[in-house]
Amino acid sequence: MEYETPLFFHVMGYAADAEGDVIDMVSGNPDWEPPESLREGLREYADFDADRFQYPPSEGIRPLREEIAARRGVGVSQVVLTNGAGEANYLAMARALERGAGSEVILTDPVYSYYPGKTTMLGGRAHYVSAGADGQLDPSVVRAAASEDTAAIVVNTPNNPTGAVYPEATVHELVEIAETNDAILVSDEVYDHYDLSGTFTSALSVDSAHRIVTNAFSKSLAITGFRVGYAIFPPHLVDDAKSRHMLVNVAGSRPAQYAVLRALQETDPAYHEANRDLLRERVDLFTGALESAGADYVEPDGAFYVLARFDGYPGTLETVEQLIDQAGVAGMPGSAFGESASSWLRFALVTPRVEEAADRLAEYVA
Amino acid sequence: MEYETPLFFHVMGYAADAEGDVIDMVSGNPDWEPPESLREGLREYADFDADRFQYPPSEGIRPLREEIAARRGVGVSQVVLTNGAGEANYLAMARALERGAGSEVILTDPVYSYYPGKTTMLGGRAHYVSAGADGQLDPSVVRAAASEDTAAIVVNTPNNPTGAVYPEATVHELVEIAETNDAILVSDEVYDHYDLSGTFTSALSVDSAHRIVTNAFSKSLAITGFRVGYAIFPPHLVDDAKSRHMLVNVAGSRPAQYAVLRALQETDPAYHEANRDLLRERVDLFTGALESAGADYVEPDGAFYVLARFDGYPGTLETVEQLIDQAGVAGMPGSAFGESASSWLRFALVTPRVEEAADRLAEYVA
Repeated sequence: MEYETPLFFHVMGYAADAEGDVIDMVSGNPDWEPPESLREGLREYADFDADRFQYPPSEGIRPLREEIAARRGVGVSQVVLTNGAGEANYLAMARALERGAGSEVILTDPVYSYYPGKTTMLGGRAHYVSAGADGQLDPSVVRAAASEDTAAIVVNTPNNPTGAVYPEATVHELVEIAETNDAILVSDEVYDHYDLSGTFTSALSVDSAHRIVTNAFSKSLAITGFRVGYAIFPPHLVDDAKSRHMLVNVAGSRPAQYAVLRALQETDPAYHEANRDLLRERVDLFTGALESAGADYVEPDGAFYVLARFDGYPGTLETVEQLIDQAGVAGMPGSAFGESASSWLRFALVTPRVEEAADRLAEYVA
Repeated sequence: MEYETPLFFHVMGYAADAEGDVIDMVSGNPDWEPPESLREGLREYADFDADRFQYPPSEGIRPLREEIAARRGVGVSQVVLTNGAGEANYLAMARALERGAGSEVILTDPVYSYYPGKTTMLGGRAHYVSAGADGQLDPSVVRAAASEDTAAIVVNTPNNPTGAVYPEATVHELVEIAETNDAILVSDEVYDHYDLSGTFTSALSVDSAHRIVTNAFSKSLAITGFRVGYAIFPPHLVDDAKSRHMLVNVAGSRPAQYAVLRALQETDPAYHEANRDLLRERVDLFTGALESAGADYVEPDGAFYVLARFDGYPGTLETVEQLIDQAGVAGMPGSAFGESASSWLRFALVTPRVEEAADRLAEYVA
């Protein structure tokens, strides 16, 4: 279950090179608009004095850190701006592993594909606990797996690829399990604005020295290419995390941080509500068409993805290529997300053509 | 000689909080203008279609990689765009250390302060070779220090903090020493556009599987806050470097990469010549005033810095704070750059007030 660097790229390239019309549902790139105020932030930046083109503070521009701290109810000193959620998770996992409190990282299966690679790169050992294709995690399974060798428990809610949203009781119990085992719960909440269930609970809802929350504006503001994310550390872990951030990246990109600040200050909640409505509509259209065709799928409670499966079509790269060539729909093989998703395919709802895609799939596999 | 994360920040904060007028010569932040086309690139970006706001390729936008490859005479597949030279050096040093070909990193003394911290973070052991305060490196000293345990030799030319520019013979011999010892020469050339001597030689001038060249647009385009850099790897090392880049950062910030592309395509060589002229003038003014006052200094051949020393004022944080408070000039303690610079102070020529600064210093220490 090692992260296969080229797999996403391979599938995207294969889809792009395919003959004929292919509906691209490979990657989690929103196809909706970023807020207008974000564009305005870039325009404004172009005319700033030259000193604004120089290094921001390593931990990020102060007003954005303050805005995040105020919204999340934490101290501004706990907030480190990162190069997207990718770096936030890297810093969080590094900090958990470097404390001398174990070398094992508990990951779920299915898993977001980057976590295993980060674990290995940081010298940790992955220990998988089964969440099943519906993605719901039984805390007692995590409790049984945790030990004094557990450095971190890494979860993602709302979940990629399953769409699961963990209930409050699960989140609180995960924090408690981390505390009991001197581990760090790393809660990646990058899809928090795409909770379709109304039940999402952030790990910040429990005050604890044993949890780090990671997030980014990549999905919530539809700007995966800007690379502005953040991690919220307990006070005793933040200084070492800032040091690593400085030694790896020095700082993040300042115009992008500023544009995000403008967008945060000026974007109406209606923007996010409209994106959720769009996604909800696409979930209904896509799963409705699968339902009509008698196909098996997982109804997501959040995030951008639907897992689906078709008899005789395992969740492999071969199936994905076959569906690109012959059905004109590009997804990701479930096997990229772990053993328990190996009979599934993941489709990202980032195209207006989701109903047509489901119909194409149903027709092809019929 | 461990990298002290807060030292730069401490000094900058101390200078900012000081009473009265302080001339800031702490950090290598250009105070001159970025090219107008770079600003135009941001303006243009603000109006792009939403799909341009999503993930760029992990290794960076293709036309910028092509532009760099063409200018540097390497294959485009060898070029990885990074989050500034900081990440480029991190990726290069990580790759050198992870080959299973030694755990020692040869660094110069004086040294650019980030290299020791990166070495330790990556599990390497620093082995210092003396360059002396003038910064010139005798290759035979490096040859004597190199062994089968040498993973990397990390150099910076034009050099921060000494201003040394290595002659062609030194660069070629360093590559040969790396080859002989199965090591990697990491040549950080971020100040290449600020060679005042006309003798700068890139390590790219020797084709070798044992050198990685790192660079950035932070200094050459006066945009330290944009975070666009690159590393050029030998073909057999590039794939693993791309994997680490992806696992740490996913990708760099796309609007910043695009603005740099526009600036590269449209900026006249006269822009760089004017910046060199400005720097040359500042070097003359600053060192001239020091000379008149009978102070000791190192005449830089490139980069932004002048090392100076004054009898009775060692290169310590205490001296720096004293000079901020009582002379109204903020520099960096030489001790931050290693043993051999411990009697020196480093002044960055990033203010139009360099002559006044030198006069203030001379008057205070007289």
